[in-house]
Amino acid sequence: MENTEEYALFGKMTAQPGQREALLSILLQAAQLVSTAKGCHQYLVYKDTQHQDCIWISEIWDSKADHDASLTIAGCKELIMQAMPLLAGKPERTELTLSGGKR
Amino acid sequence: MENTEEYALFGKMTAQPGQREALLSILLQAAQLVSTAKGCHQYLVYKDTQHQDCIWISEIWDSKADHDASLTIAGCKELIMQAMPLLAGKPERTELTLSGGKR
Repeated sequence: MENTEEYALFGKMTAQPGQREALLSILLQAAQLVSTAKGCHQYLVYKDTQHQDCIWISEIWDSKADHDASLTIAGCKELIMQAMPLLAGKPERTELTLSGGKR
Repeated sequence: MENTEEYALFGKMTAQPGQREALLSILLQAAQLVSTAKGCHQYLVYKDTQHQDCIWISEIWDSKADHDASLTIAGCKELIMQAMPLLAGKPERTELTLSGGKR
């Protein structure tokens, strides 16, 4: 159990029909890229069971500043550029603070 | 990096006005209760930054069966009963499989 106030983020992306696996592969590369970034505690990628084109991510960071800084990591912009044409619409995001629990 | 097919769940709850902290306290107790349950890898509780009545949870389990079994743990039903009257409407849930990433 913890009682922190870390910054967390849930993202939901919808791929163009048939492009979920390609998008997933890019997001897993992004996860690897930011895994050693300052303040990154978690970056997980999931497939939605009910919606075959949907992908979710969950991120936990020391701060929003650390998250924002990660977007400038070498290679990150390239992955975003690769992902963009695979998306059907704008990603949705929910900003959170982590209250606690098991991890 | 991992490439598993664990069962994951995101839940979103909206508390009655002014009841978020009370609901949060119950969910943190639930997290503690299930933290040692068979197959439980993660159970985190978050506050939504944009919506002052919203709470999110993220869970990762070996399987849906392990998750479902956890609902029968002693004390779990009592916590659900405590939480119910604090909710404004039905909780939303998204069922997922974990594809990988950093944790």
